[in-house]
Amino acid sequence: MKDLTFGLIGWGYWGPKLARNLDTLPQSALAMVADMDAGRLAQVAAQQPWVKTTTSAEDIFRADVDGVVIATPVRTHYRLAREALLHGKHVLVEKPLTDNVADAEELVELARERGLTLMVGHTFEYSPAVNELRKIVRAGDLGNILCVETERVNLGLYRSDINVIWDLAPHDVSILLYILGETPTSVRAQAHAHLTPRIFDIAHLDLGFGGHMTAHVHVSWLHPCKIRRVTVIGDQRMAVYDDTNPAEMLKIFNKGADVHADPVVSYRYGAITIPHIEWVEPLRLECADFANAIRTGAQPRAHGGVGLEVVRILAAAQETVGSARETHAAELVMAGS
Amino acid sequence: MKDLTFGLIGWGYWGPKLARNLDTLPQSALAMVADMDAGRLAQVAAQQPWVKTTTSAEDIFRADVDGVVIATPVRTHYRLAREALLHGKHVLVEKPLTDNVADAEELVELARERGLTLMVGHTFEYSPAVNELRKIVRAGDLGNILCVETERVNLGLYRSDINVIWDLAPHDVSILLYILGETPTSVRAQAHAHLTPRIFDIAHLDLGFGGHMTAHVHVSWLHPCKIRRVTVIGDQRMAVYDDTNPAEMLKIFNKGADVHADPVVSYRYGAITIPHIEWVEPLRLECADFANAIRTGAQPRAHGGVGLEVVRILAAAQETVGSARETHAAELVMAGS
Amino acid sequence: MKDLTFGLIGWGYWGPKLARNLDTLPQSALAMVADMDAGRLAQVAAQQPWVKTTTSAEDIFRADVDGVVIATPVRTHYRLAREALLHGKHVLVEKPLTDNVADAEELVELARERGLTLMVGHTFEYSPAVNELRKIVRAGDLGNILCVETERVNLGLYRSDINVIWDLAPHDVSILLYILGETPTSVRAQAHAHLTPRIFDIAHLDLGFGGHMTAHVHVSWLHPCKIRRVTVIGDQRMAVYDDTNPAEMLKIFNKGADVHADPVVSYRYGAITIPHIEWVEPLRLECADFANAIRTGAQPRAHGGVGLEVVRILAAAQETVGSARETHAAELVMAGS
Amino acid sequence: MKDLTFGLIGWGYWGPKLARNLDTLPQSALAMVADMDAGRLAQVAAQQPWVKTTTSAEDIFRADVDGVVIATPVRTHYRLAREALLHGKHVLVEKPLTDNVADAEELVELARERGLTLMVGHTFEYSPAVNELRKIVRAGDLGNILCVETERVNLGLYRSDINVIWDLAPHDVSILLYILGETPTSVRAQAHAHLTPRIFDIAHLDLGFGGHMTAHVHVSWLHPCKIRRVTVIGDQRMAVYDDTNPAEMLKIFNKGADVHADPVVSYRYGAITIPHIEWVEPLRLECADFANAIRTGAQPRAHGGVGLEVVRILAAAQETVGSARETHAAELVMAGS
Repeated sequence: MKDLTFGLIGWGYWGPKLARNLDTLPQSALAMVADMDAGRLAQVAAQQPWVKTTTSAEDIFRADVDGVVIATPVRTHYRLAREALLHGKHVLVEKPLTDNVADAEELVELARERGLTLMVGHTFEYSPAVNELRKIVRAGDLGNILCVETERVNLGLYRSDINVIWDLAPHDVSILLYILGETPTSVRAQAHAHLTPRIFDIAHLDLGFGGHMTAHVHVSWLHPCKIRRVTVIGDQRMAVYDDTNPAEMLKIFNKGADVHADPVVSYRYGAITIPHIEWVEPLRLECADFANAIRTGAQPRAHGGVGLEVVRILAAAQETVGSARETHAAELVMAGS
Repeated sequence: MKDLTFGLIGWGYWGPKLARNLDTLPQSALAMVADMDAGRLAQVAAQQPWVKTTTSAEDIFRADVDGVVIATPVRTHYRLAREALLHGKHVLVEKPLTDNVADAEELVELARERGLTLMVGHTFEYSPAVNELRKIVRAGDLGNILCVETERVNLGLYRSDINVIWDLAPHDVSILLYILGETPTSVRAQAHAHLTPRIFDIAHLDLGFGGHMTAHVHVSWLHPCKIRRVTVIGDQRMAVYDDTNPAEMLKIFNKGADVHADPVVSYRYGAITIPHIEWVEPLRLECADFANAIRTGAQPRAHGGVGLEVVRILAAAQETVGSARETHAAELVMAGS
Repeated sequence: MKDLTFGLIGWGYWGPKLARNLDTLPQSALAMVADMDAGRLAQVAAQQPWVKTTTSAEDIFRADVDGVVIATPVRTHYRLAREALLHGKHVLVEKPLTDNVADAEELVELARERGLTLMVGHTFEYSPAVNELRKIVRAGDLGNILCVETERVNLGLYRSDINVIWDLAPHDVSILLYILGETPTSVRAQAHAHLTPRIFDIAHLDLGFGGHMTAHVHVSWLHPCKIRRVTVIGDQRMAVYDDTNPAEMLKIFNKGADVHADPVVSYRYGAITIPHIEWVEPLRLECADFANAIRTGAQPRAHGGVGLEVVRILAAAQETVGSARETHAAELVMAGS
Repeated sequence: MKDLTFGLIGWGYWGPKLARNLDTLPQSALAMVADMDAGRLAQVAAQQPWVKTTTSAEDIFRADVDGVVIATPVRTHYRLAREALLHGKHVLVEKPLTDNVADAEELVELARERGLTLMVGHTFEYSPAVNELRKIVRAGDLGNILCVETERVNLGLYRSDINVIWDLAPHDVSILLYILGETPTSVRAQAHAHLTPRIFDIAHLDLGFGGHMTAHVHVSWLHPCKIRRVTVIGDQRMAVYDDTNPAEMLKIFNKGADVHADPVVSYRYGAITIPHIEWVEPLRLECADFANAIRTGAQPRAHGGVGLEVVRILAAAQETVGSARETHAAELVMAGS
């Protein structure tokens, strides 16, 4: 018997994937799907014909469902999530939680007041490889972490509502917070719009962690190759997580540089280890965590507070792009050249 | 018969390689090597026993040699190159030309006044793959260039006299200038010292070219993998030059994104082409260009003016690191977290 | 309205995949699934709840379905396919068609007599990359084909009913016949059983094509890496099809060796080209071809005659293993060692 | 002071490499080089001008040198090595030792009688990666070895005096003997001549080791890619040695299949380990072993007896090609097709 039912809003890229996973959770069922496009709703009928469809999100808020999953464009997240919470529904929103800090703060506060689960779709926090990497980092296997570098680039997909910082960097920032367990104390960014005016398609975020650690996030919609890589550099060992290489997703390099009496640096070169990682679809674990949070009241891994933290960092990054562009580049007025 | 003779100062990493190449040029000979370390000079005798050795650079300036090649630590470049030019010698200096703009300007001016060749060891300008890439870019095969990204990372080699910007970025900046034929109009950088105080070991340079093109240079001494990659993104095609993959050093991707009526972006996906590139050792071509410049008076490809331009860009990058660090990062004072 | 209905026998590895594809063909529907295991039939209900299930294949033969798809163990192919044809059904059988030549011949003859479609699941004949390779080979782009080498190795999956020749080589042999358009005139094989008695887990097939071309097929269940590669060597160009590399599935090497006055061999080295191949699921095209054959009476690409040819080659290969093992290896009786 | 001197016969592909290494051994010197081509001898003068040159091998036999190194075409190995031994010289011959068993036996016997070192240039026995692999195999880390597969393919270099079995397989066969410490009890081969009449350019050797282990050697001059790989399959773990991947030359896969009550096979999947291997040029270690054998009378690693064993295996392989071709392929007389 099904004791948990879900409504899903938005049948775009993530909607069908979420629907499939929600429906195969034990004792759970997807009851209704809303999308403004009737053509898309016909696809729902093809995939899961027992699910009701509607073109009005309101129908879902009024329906007898326990959880609402929101997979719509970012600018609508706040309004839909707020409405769902006000109707007493538990909410899972696709990342990023909102497109500004104030809205995210309000949602987190609203969920707290009402005692409802608010969760955000930071899928990579449920990736087995990311969790193995986190375990290794937290156990101190890499020593003290000095630096993390992430790269998430490909050709497209261009979005017209948000720039590449808000589209791709939520993944990397949530991975950073999750594996490091620390929040950056400073953020700067460089970003450029090459193809469409004012919508950044390449960005570099530079994060500081109180002087003892740095992180660098490179995201791009304008690159010939698909790269999805996180490099963690400890003072004892280093690790590379490459999401595009299923057979060797995580490599631990037993190598490093040791500083002795200045200026002597010596190098250690040891074995590389590639742990075996049992594959489970991250989205399935994410949906199961949402179901469990609803049932037990436990805080889900990717709870609203984490979603808010990611939004704060993205907003800070975005803010520095504008200011830095005008004032800080060295103007190369080259008299002699 | 040998009509051209060289003296070489500095028997460290580059010295023996330069020596071997100088000596196999037609009608040319390496006559003398200077190094302050007598132990190193013993290695000269092992490799090329017919070459004279000395612990004093002065001996080379006074010797009957046509060209002087300087492969010493960067801080000595200016003094030794100046001295050599004052003694009427043609000069090839390892990169970077100097560690500050004023010194570089003086050397360029001095060489001009005396009618002597001043050349800098931008080896990659002589790489067959870089030249093929340049040909493709200049022919317009990639369309208008929107962006170039370079990555040059590895574990070490740490230097105590210069930071990673001055050690590794000269390669990438000289490649950029060479393939694009344009000088950046603005420069910014982010850099961090993780291992040794005050000596940056990871840096990101962000170059602007008058609004129509950007470039990003990533250099690091603190990375588990050796990556040497240049990605050129045009509005018609894209190219990746990977110096670590001899069989597929240059890939041309016939793909891209087209902007139509906002917000429509469409994607083109076509074939990848990997041209065959005949391997020639770049250092050999560099030495031959030096010999030719001496003989004919022609300007060598990597002439002093280019060396000065690279130094200007590095100095501007270095300058922005300091200022940006204090003033521009968003401080994440997170009341709520 | 659905004008074509299918019954499927066998819900193991291929069954669910075939079911999903059959059901999404236009104007077609999967009506019934048979499997002897009731637990598996419960999975059918989960995936496609509108489909009837039964533990008896007979129910399908008697049902009002147009086509029967057989995805059961190899030893049952002949019996089930024969029965289906005798009931006037069109038949698609998983590869290999049967486990011996006589049975395959009988099925082909029976289908011919009754005017029914008999098709075999040579999925790779529907792979876009294989079809691109075939087009290139047939257009003469590689010159005269001298040799084809295939490799299909991985750890497992061990089968207890058939050996690796009958399990994996059908893929490679059907690819060879399809791209070359020629049948081998001689076959030899070497095979070994390392893990389970009498069931070969590594095999090498050596095929001759009348003196002008050879092919070599390497299949293994006992290998640490997953390799799926076809190398086609022409006297003008060479091609590699690597099914495990989605981004570069097909590479055309413009290189070769030319023979001049004996003993002079010279080498040509040119560009590598990687055509863009639009991905379509081969199984979907296979199912569509089956549906089209039923509707129009056209011969499907992987028709019974091709299935018979593959069985003939596998049977010949199997036969030579036994004889060669006893009589032909050079016994190294080494007096001196 | 130099206490050991060498003469070298043959200045082709291996000659210059051997010369360079012989000359840098401690207390050793290359004294004379012989080649029939005066043009090549001019290259000796360029590389090592202090070395005497001659167009007559006889000059070396009569010279006051301790060891003679023979790097000439295979058909001349026996005659030159025999002559050198008769003149009381220690001998290092490039692989293969000879082109037939009787000649190899005679050389081994002659060296034994005279108390001289006879060594063969099985370079890979001196490769650090091969030695690491051998250590792992011998320590039982992989469990019982079931099977070894080797692949050594590339475009060219075609030889007119010997076929691909004699040109490339000596490397793989010597590696097999060295890591396994066992001699095969049976040998079969399949080989084809695609480009030049009667000279095989692709061959597959199938070696049996008394029923408990098999090996397969694939060598080719006619392949678009350079592959140099040895795969060792144990019943506990598996290893791949890839000589073309310097950063990951040896991979140990902690995976395998376990056989339980028939027909149940289960699979183990564990971590991959890539040991760090300190690079040393194998040819240098080979030359040092030769020098040490001369000085101390110790048996060198790649002694004449090993060279003879390799020749026996190659000769047996060659022999089975002819017989198998006529008698054992299944003729596919296909009545029905």
